[in-house]
Amino acid sequence: MPTARRPRQARAIETRRRVYEAAVAEFERSGVEAARIEDIVTAAGVSWGTFFTYFPSKDDVVLEAAIVTCAAFADACRKGLAAGSGTGVIVGNAFAALRRAAPAPGPFRDAIMRGIANQPERLSDHLGEDVPNPVLALAEVLEAGQRRGDVAAGEPPESLAAVLVHATIAAGRREAAMERAAGATQRSGLPLTVLTIKLLLRGMRPDPEPGDPREVALERAAAALRDAAEPDGPRIP
Amino acid sequence: MPTARRPRQARAIETRRRVYEAAVAEFERSGVEAARIEDIVTAAGVSWGTFFTYFPSKDDVVLEAAIVTCAAFADACRKGLAAGSGTGVIVGNAFAALRRAAPAPGPFRDAIMRGIANQPERLSDHLGEDVPNPVLALAEVLEAGQRRGDVAAGEPPESLAAVLVHATIAAGRREAAMERAAGATQRSGLPLTVLTIKLLLRGMRPDPEPGDPREVALERAAAALRDAAEPDGPRIP
Repeated sequence: MPTARRPRQARAIETRRRVYEAAVAEFERSGVEAARIEDIVTAAGVSWGTFFTYFPSKDDVVLEAAIVTCAAFADACRKGLAAGSGTGVIVGNAFAALRRAAPAPGPFRDAIMRGIANQPERLSDHLGEDVPNPVLALAEVLEAGQRRGDVAAGEPPESLAAVLVHATIAAGRREAAMERAAGATQRSGLPLTVLTIKLLLRGMRPDPEPGDPREVALERAAAALRDAAEPDGPRIP
Repeated sequence: MPTARRPRQARAIETRRRVYEAAVAEFERSGVEAARIEDIVTAAGVSWGTFFTYFPSKDDVVLEAAIVTCAAFADACRKGLAAGSGTGVIVGNAFAALRRAAPAPGPFRDAIMRGIANQPERLSDHLGEDVPNPVLALAEVLEAGQRRGDVAAGEPPESLAAVLVHATIAAGRREAAMERAAGATQRSGLPLTVLTIKLLLRGMRPDPEPGDPREVALERAAAALRDAAEPDGPRIP
């Protein structure tokens, strides 16, 4: 390859990519804390100075991995909306894209997912305007679903999206912990993340009729839950 | 009150309860890390030695709070099953009981909930046989629901219970973080925890007919999600 002829900027982009990938690989192997810059620069074939030019701290690599993950999710949402796909298909594709773009299962992926789940405001600051965070990207999909009649109206799409994102990330972490646990017996049935998404999407359908006795019972249960913040709130009989 | 006449054991139980409540109040106020034993023993009117007799470390108080919280949840599940209540009502009551039994919202409650969500195995070791952890308690409720036809069969009740517990705890933490965030705008609609429980319970209903095109789409989305663990897995068209 005639690297010598490449313009300087293209070479810089290529070097930066190589450094990033070496760092991600090392973080996946050793975790962020234990990873050694020494091993990253050796693997990437660059100097310490080059590493720090592109990534002033390890946190900058973590942040970039979070951005790449969120961008893949948002991109799948956008493409699904443009193609006019159904809500279930878009959501399935978006979480599949997120899973593919995220680091391999392990402490590094956990750190990314924790950041997405627990610090969405901080994440939004860094993502800028081009990459919406997953809750906002998904809220657009669910809002389109509400307009089309796929998704029950009545709840703000941002709340539905927040539930779907947080529940799925929590299920994914639990799933990974179970897989890592020594001697964990493999359960039958769907993986927890897939089960979570299926149950929530079914629950968002506009089916339930107003008079359905199960809906009435659910409303009473919901009221009791809301009141439970008060120490002597009512119980459902 | 004729305290002098009380048998020794009753006095010990009463003292232990006073120490525990003072510790919980102090943990709620200052967080576990920052709480000072000095303030706890002053509030409880006991000596340092008494505190350490009952609770060799702060962690023992945290563990007891987790046990109290899990016991309230399991108790509500048991009572609901005994009364023959519907699944939605039992689940609503159980999470309401958990919320009432848990420490006040703040870092101490977060620590308890994190323990329940992330270390269920460790928790089960401490709970012993009398208090099942929330996932196991709920699995019994959902299994009864499957037998009665409230809950769709086909998925292991433990998986359904794990999804419900982890999703609800994740929603609760997000909800609390939003409330604490300075300048957070109050959203309309249900609190996230209540919304999560409602959506999941609706999603667990045995309604969907095998030929429902939305179910077919959901199955394809689920398959794509499962395959997403492989780097070049298929996409849903």
